[in-house]
Amino acid sequence: MLEEIQKWMMKKKPEAISFLQQMVRKNSEQGNEKEVQLLIAEKLKDIGCEVDLWHPDEEEFFQHPYFCATRTDFSNSPNVAAVIKGTGGGRSVVLNGHVDVVPPGDISQWDNDPYSGAIKDGKLYGRGATDMKGGNLCLLLAMECIKDLKLDLKGDVIFHSVMEEESGGAGTLAAILRGYTADAAIIPEPTNMKIFPSQQGSMWFRIHIFGRSAHGGTRYEGVSALEKAMVVIQEIQRLEKTRNERITDPLYEKIPIPVPINLGKISGGDWPSSVPDCIMIEGRIGVAPDETLEQVRKELEDRMTSIQDDWLTKHPPRVEWFGAQWLPGSIDKEHELMQLLKKRFKDISGAEPVIEASPWGTDGGLLTALGHTPSIVFGPGVTSVAHYPDEYIEMDKIFEAAAMITLTILDWCEVAHQPQQKELLKKEK
Amino acid sequence: MLEEIQKWMMKKKPEAISFLQQMVRKNSEQGNEKEVQLLIAEKLKDIGCEVDLWHPDEEEFFQHPYFCATRTDFSNSPNVAAVIKGTGGGRSVVLNGHVDVVPPGDISQWDNDPYSGAIKDGKLYGRGATDMKGGNLCLLLAMECIKDLKLDLKGDVIFHSVMEEESGGAGTLAAILRGYTADAAIIPEPTNMKIFPSQQGSMWFRIHIFGRSAHGGTRYEGVSALEKAMVVIQEIQRLEKTRNERITDPLYEKIPIPVPINLGKISGGDWPSSVPDCIMIEGRIGVAPDETLEQVRKELEDRMTSIQDDWLTKHPPRVEWFGAQWLPGSIDKEHELMQLLKKRFKDISGAEPVIEASPWGTDGGLLTALGHTPSIVFGPGVTSVAHYPDEYIEMDKIFEAAAMITLTILDWCEVAHQPQQKELLKKEK
Repeated sequence: MLEEIQKWMMKKKPEAISFLQQMVRKNSEQGNEKEVQLLIAEKLKDIGCEVDLWHPDEEEFFQHPYFCATRTDFSNSPNVAAVIKGTGGGRSVVLNGHVDVVPPGDISQWDNDPYSGAIKDGKLYGRGATDMKGGNLCLLLAMECIKDLKLDLKGDVIFHSVMEEESGGAGTLAAILRGYTADAAIIPEPTNMKIFPSQQGSMWFRIHIFGRSAHGGTRYEGVSALEKAMVVIQEIQRLEKTRNERITDPLYEKIPIPVPINLGKISGGDWPSSVPDCIMIEGRIGVAPDETLEQVRKELEDRMTSIQDDWLTKHPPRVEWFGAQWLPGSIDKEHELMQLLKKRFKDISGAEPVIEASPWGTDGGLLTALGHTPSIVFGPGVTSVAHYPDEYIEMDKIFEAAAMITLTILDWCEVAHQPQQKELLKKEK
Repeated sequence: MLEEIQKWMMKKKPEAISFLQQMVRKNSEQGNEKEVQLLIAEKLKDIGCEVDLWHPDEEEFFQHPYFCATRTDFSNSPNVAAVIKGTGGGRSVVLNGHVDVVPPGDISQWDNDPYSGAIKDGKLYGRGATDMKGGNLCLLLAMECIKDLKLDLKGDVIFHSVMEEESGGAGTLAAILRGYTADAAIIPEPTNMKIFPSQQGSMWFRIHIFGRSAHGGTRYEGVSALEKAMVVIQEIQRLEKTRNERITDPLYEKIPIPVPINLGKISGGDWPSSVPDCIMIEGRIGVAPDETLEQVRKELEDRMTSIQDDWLTKHPPRVEWFGAQWLPGSIDKEHELMQLLKKRFKDISGAEPVIEASPWGTDGGLLTALGHTPSIVFGPGVTSVAHYPDEYIEMDKIFEAAAMITLTILDWCEVAHQPQQKELLKKEK
């Protein structure tokens, strides 16, 4: 079966690469996911799946405590799902991938058009190539392979092509609410072929630090919000240290800071010769797999009101939670889907897989916490090029990962009978 | 003579207050000084002065090393000067006041329209009331009083009504270049009736601090420009300490930080979950009376390239000098104009004057350094309301200061003969 799958993948390569180019060439920034979703829906129909394409609009979706998006108009952002129904008695699996991409940023930093899909030296270039249209192609190949080889499985295989992952997972939320959950999930985000049973969650926050204005020439008559911001930043650095010292899971052994607190943005003051009376800091706090978002919010907020500083005690920093959030997620390291994927990784690559914790959040958090679908993150693509100019994916890795994932699905969902496949083998001889 | 001057001031009060209202009601933000200058020119003509109203446009002005402005179009910003020519053999004096005002800021923080000129409880309200149209009124009263009482003086009295003081003194530069200098000067900026023989100079600077970007979830792969900015800020705090420890002049005895370095503005980073790769800080550095701007620039720049930090050594912060600058200025504490003003202060108020160093720059720096006209800063108005909402001036103080200044001018320039005045006295009896 392994050889058969690999052979099928090789045969499909040219057509699949061309399809990846088509996906990359559709700019699918948030709010603009429709075209690529229609393309994927068409492909699913071609391979013989019934397709569910819908625009989330129910009240339950918008009112859900885990609804987190910067918009309420999803009219140009449909979700797509397709199910290969099992014969019964088997375990089901969700294959989840997002189609939204982050903006290309400063175009002048790209060698080619950000949506070129250009191919060079075995790499395919373009925004989304790695994050995560290459991964989506793995899933589509798995779906097509199962259909094409007429492999009847006992469990359902449920494919999600979701929108809006990059700022908090509204697409996957909608898929879960529509009932597309399973016994476990695989999400081929770009892990550089590492297997991530745990994913760091994260949230964005904004802190306002207050001072008292004065003329710069008599700055001692005021209280500099910038000096107070430095006190706040030092407290945040201490908090990060405390939070990370608590983490003992060996998955995090090689990660210098398992759940970092990143301060990404600062602004404040409006005149060089005035004492600034307000500074705003925006950042991202990592959430460990065993934490809830509520616990983490409370911990940061409590720290901000207990800083040892007279001024800050009387004028405590104000914490806001805004923008994106990703729930942490984890699957037991000894979960059978983990065992199966590890085995198939070794079968195909000949090497031991690297098992680590993900330094960023994925839709696996929502699938785990809300959909009761423990998720493994594993896919082709190098994380370091995601969100950067000249994003690319090594094409060979896509097919390697696709074969590993397909075989793992067959093991997990169990092949009921493969008469068609035998017939096919005969024919090929 | 003292009583005579005081009597004259009392008589003029209603008319003068009404004129101050007119001045305040003319919004004279930079680039918009024309209307108030026309008003002042008219007043000077009314009291019998020949008026010089001109738009600085000569190459010498724009090319001058002390030219410092955010614009090159002064077509709506004339300067005004008027001279009461002396009979000869006496010392001359410059009376300098600026008409430009800073913007009103957030209008909702004002109780009244910022240009209302409203009067309540002995105070006149409006942007510029204190900084420094109230002071300008003192000078106009002095001019009018000398004319009205027909006091022939030996030395020239040279009145400047200048634009563009609030960002570096281009108006006073133009007046100096046009030849309006003297043996000494009085500038009635709002000192709250303190006498400032020394004025702090200042310059604006901008510092760019560089880091290396990375995803916030793996922030340890980047170098936070914000963390490096904190190192830079600490170095600036040390520099401020060093610079102030050098100042031993007793004038600064009661001033906690004689020449502060104010960090007024910060911004950097563009995404909460990215490591910021550039932070910009804007500030103002105070310049001591015995320092040159060049020395101060070099000291800050040298500090920025010698910070003990591996990253910053390899990626040194970039310092820019932009926007406003004010030269420091000083007059000998024992200068005769100082003695005269101190005496007249005591004569009228009955109290000893407070002698201090000014915590901010004025056009006195340019007058001293370029115009060889040592300057005293002394005027009505409370500094703390300048540049703030609901700016106001206590009206009584204007007339007190005007009398002190007028008497000081008479002493300094020397009354040649006052037959007209004697005649006038007789008539009034």
